[in-house]
Amino acid sequence: MDELELIQRLTKHLPTNASLVVGAGDDCAVLDLGLADRQVLFKTDAVVEGVHFTKDTPPEKVGHKALARCLNDVAAMAGTPTAALVTLALPPKFDATFVDGIYTGIGALAQRWHVAIAGGETTTNPGGILISIALIGTVPKNRALLRSGSRAGDALFVTGELGGSLAGKHLDFEPRLAEAQWLAAHFPVHAMIDISDGLAGDLRHLMHAGHVGAEIVSRAIPISRAAKLQARSESSAKPPLLAALTDGEDFELLFTVPSNQAVPLLDAWKKQFPKLKLSCIGKMTAEPGLKIRDKDGLRELNLKGYAHFS
Amino acid sequence: MDELELIQRLTKHLPTNASLVVGAGDDCAVLDLGLADRQVLFKTDAVVEGVHFTKDTPPEKVGHKALARCLNDVAAMAGTPTAALVTLALPPKFDATFVDGIYTGIGALAQRWHVAIAGGETTTNPGGILISIALIGTVPKNRALLRSGSRAGDALFVTGELGGSLAGKHLDFEPRLAEAQWLAAHFPVHAMIDISDGLAGDLRHLMHAGHVGAEIVSRAIPISRAAKLQARSESSAKPPLLAALTDGEDFELLFTVPSNQAVPLLDAWKKQFPKLKLSCIGKMTAEPGLKIRDKDGLRELNLKGYAHFS
Repeated sequence: MDELELIQRLTKHLPTNASLVVGAGDDCAVLDLGLADRQVLFKTDAVVEGVHFTKDTPPEKVGHKALARCLNDVAAMAGTPTAALVTLALPPKFDATFVDGIYTGIGALAQRWHVAIAGGETTTNPGGILISIALIGTVPKNRALLRSGSRAGDALFVTGELGGSLAGKHLDFEPRLAEAQWLAAHFPVHAMIDISDGLAGDLRHLMHAGHVGAEIVSRAIPISRAAKLQARSESSAKPPLLAALTDGEDFELLFTVPSNQAVPLLDAWKKQFPKLKLSCIGKMTAEPGLKIRDKDGLRELNLKGYAHFS
Repeated sequence: MDELELIQRLTKHLPTNASLVVGAGDDCAVLDLGLADRQVLFKTDAVVEGVHFTKDTPPEKVGHKALARCLNDVAAMAGTPTAALVTLALPPKFDATFVDGIYTGIGALAQRWHVAIAGGETTTNPGGILISIALIGTVPKNRALLRSGSRAGDALFVTGELGGSLAGKHLDFEPRLAEAQWLAAHFPVHAMIDISDGLAGDLRHLMHAGHVGAEIVSRAIPISRAAKLQARSESSAKPPLLAALTDGEDFELLFTVPSNQAVPLLDAWKKQFPKLKLSCIGKMTAEPGLKIRDKDGLRELNLKGYAHFS
């Protein structure tokens, strides 16, 4: 059973109540706690030694990554983070300096984004270090950008560059909070997701259960320098385009806007974020399925994104 | 380094912001998100295979325990739980039936307390199963019952019976939500805590950094049947009083009220919760330190509660 199947199985019959606006299946849950103008975002995310980092990863980067992943999920809803709790599961014997470093990384990032670290807990984990972050944020009422809002004809955009994140970016990326909030404030964004399991995998989440499809253009996909370098230097490495489509942990924003907004968006973006690439990589289609257009024409794309259980 | 020292070290310099009312160091964090009449409670708690349950524990009870621990922390603030996220960290090979059972246990308890399961995530954990619950609740504004509110002269109360929880109670206790909310609504409770690390250990948290002390009366401490049975049947077991003072995972409420409320409280409690014992076990004192009164008189109590890292 892979991770997706497991989650689908577990989340089929979950208890709900009147506060729950968006439950399992988006970047964050959305709760209505009775605030006049805002809703509450709620998210948890864990990083695990041997899966998301190694014994050799600088602990400050481990802490940074743990919190940044969660902040990026708040970004993908166009929200603002408020407070986090840190769960630190440690083996019976642990290196206190490493643990201090994790907290230093978490603290520096939290400070930069005005996130309160409201506490947390430590517990024993025989197999290694696991850090789980729980995060509360807010978003203007009914303005959370969901995965399910895309419409046929929408232009499809991605921030930054894709692929090769494991060469370094996965440890020091900055959450796209400012970009997402600006997008939501200035353009009628229909749907947004944070790319963590590869473009090809996460794009399927914008096709809401097969009711719309997508068509991407291979030469429009922004491939990272790291993915290109890897392909050149390692014979066993993925070709750069495949890396951009399937590598995990890009932590870029993937979103759709009405097609008539595509050109104004690109113009405005260049002025607002001159250092960060924004690419129109294709469109949403009425016909279900994910297709890619390259020099040989249009064909079905059949790749699976990075899955934790495989 | 034990768990307390580690937490003190890590939580010394945490980033904060205007939303944070109560941070690390109480049963839950308290946030002000701008609601007119309520504040938000925020908590995470993890249970780990080999520490909090074993491979032989029925999975429904594992799920129940994971959520119940968190709900009890909301109870200890006199709050109401709203929504939870479930983080399930699983070894690469896992038993899907066991995982289903965990969710069944979580779901049944959530349903009973009208808590929405708003999603969560699964991740890999090489060493075994770890379940972390993140919980949001609410509490009437400025009415959260903190650990720090006790005053010299307060009467000290505990619900239920203490000790021997590992014989079974730790897996099927019901969170004391109804009791705590009733207490907060009807009596001027000064301070409250959920006993998870043993009475002797957790009582120290009500002595806010040594500014007050406490005096408990040995024969007033409600000792569980399980602790008495264990002492009788196992020669290596703790004497019953020691078990009641130091066993972990009692999940009872420990709280203080002004001494003139002690008798009215006991009377009202008997009518409201006829099946659940409430015991006045001593008082808070101006003199710092924790003392116990037994047949030999009054003496310093020097025991440590159950600590995860020992």
